[in-house]
Amino acid sequence: MRRKEFEVLNEEETSQFLQEMSFGFLGTTGDDGWPLVTPLNFVYHEGAIYFHGSKFGQKMDFLKQRPKVTFSVAKEYAIIPSYFTDPKLACPATAFFKSVLVRGYAVPLEDPREKADALGAFMRKLQPEGGYEPIDPNDKEYLKNLNGVSVVRIEVAELTAKYKFGQNMAEARREKVIDSLVERNTGLDAETAELMRQYCPHHRKPLGD
Amino acid sequence: MRRKEFEVLNEEETSQFLQEMSFGFLGTTGDDGWPLVTPLNFVYHEGAIYFHGSKFGQKMDFLKQRPKVTFSVAKEYAIIPSYFTDPKLACPATAFFKSVLVRGYAVPLEDPREKADALGAFMRKLQPEGGYEPIDPNDKEYLKNLNGVSVVRIEVAELTAKYKFGQNMAEARREKVIDSLVERNTGLDAETAELMRQYCPHHRKPLGD
Repeated sequence: MRRKEFEVLNEEETSQFLQEMSFGFLGTTGDDGWPLVTPLNFVYHEGAIYFHGSKFGQKMDFLKQRPKVTFSVAKEYAIIPSYFTDPKLACPATAFFKSVLVRGYAVPLEDPREKADALGAFMRKLQPEGGYEPIDPNDKEYLKNLNGVSVVRIEVAELTAKYKFGQNMAEARREKVIDSLVERNTGLDAETAELMRQYCPHHRKPLGD
Repeated sequence: MRRKEFEVLNEEETSQFLQEMSFGFLGTTGDDGWPLVTPLNFVYHEGAIYFHGSKFGQKMDFLKQRPKVTFSVAKEYAIIPSYFTDPKLACPATAFFKSVLVRGYAVPLEDPREKADALGAFMRKLQPEGGYEPIDPNDKEYLKNLNGVSVVRIEVAELTAKYKFGQNMAEARREKVIDSLVERNTGLDAETAELMRQYCPHHRKPLGD
């Protein structure tokens, strides 16, 4: 990351964000020189990213051949229009967001027990209300399904989080944007204004410390 | 794409979706074997993807060295819990989404007029309410900013759209999911049920034809 003021170093905040987001984008490398970018549901579990899919897709071929993969998760909070701070130029228009980028190694799981454990975490995240029997490799029906599905762990080599909420803005400009968001009050504007205050470099209050 | 039943062939639907989505994920190829996946605001304008950014970022270095890039846009409509169709197994749990994948060639723009045209389209999409003077390379203030920013066109080599709304489901199962979505009625459930009907292979009604 080029601009260090947007970097987030708090593991708890990062985990919370990854728990909140249902899907991210897997980057693998293709045979023809084009990277492949695939949207996928995922879970961040015990320090690794897990996803599942067909055994026969292109991304599975690619990650077996070239296990260096990337996983990117981002949430846009607000489009900041130029006129919040400039009556003439379009240039100050921007967007505020949280994003996490993982560089890691893809490891397809083989053991039905390991698959069941990962998919259990996946279900607890994405279907927290339950409504299914626990995924158990000793159950014949489950075992058949476990053998038929690919489950992949991304072992994290590097995880960086970038939260962009105007940390690089001069004080007066930041205050203008906060006031304008509070006034506009659509979508996630109120939460965005709160995050601008929280991540303000002059008033940084890390969570969980 | 492996499963052809999810493919969308209608250019107008694809354009509408890309116009509706404010950001996507750029895949570039790094020096160290890892793809880089970067979330970016974008506009789909006259058959190409445009985005802008700093002249000095890592992705700019990568795309100059290796112009084969990928751009992926996805919107999740609904998580479909397993119990909509199965009282026991977790396996039917899935998610319905629209996604578009572009494989193309990155071309950094040099001419301030071309940059201004692309950024004009970008602003009309992302700040449709206006509130700025038109981006004009003859204006000294704008020219300085145009010279300072990177604007990149992705020339499309291939664009594929995948809309996943249960097209592969047997009729009875699809009807169960539609009814359950209508009953749950949170988030985009009602719209998702409508899209399931629209994209049902037995009742396909293409838009714009």
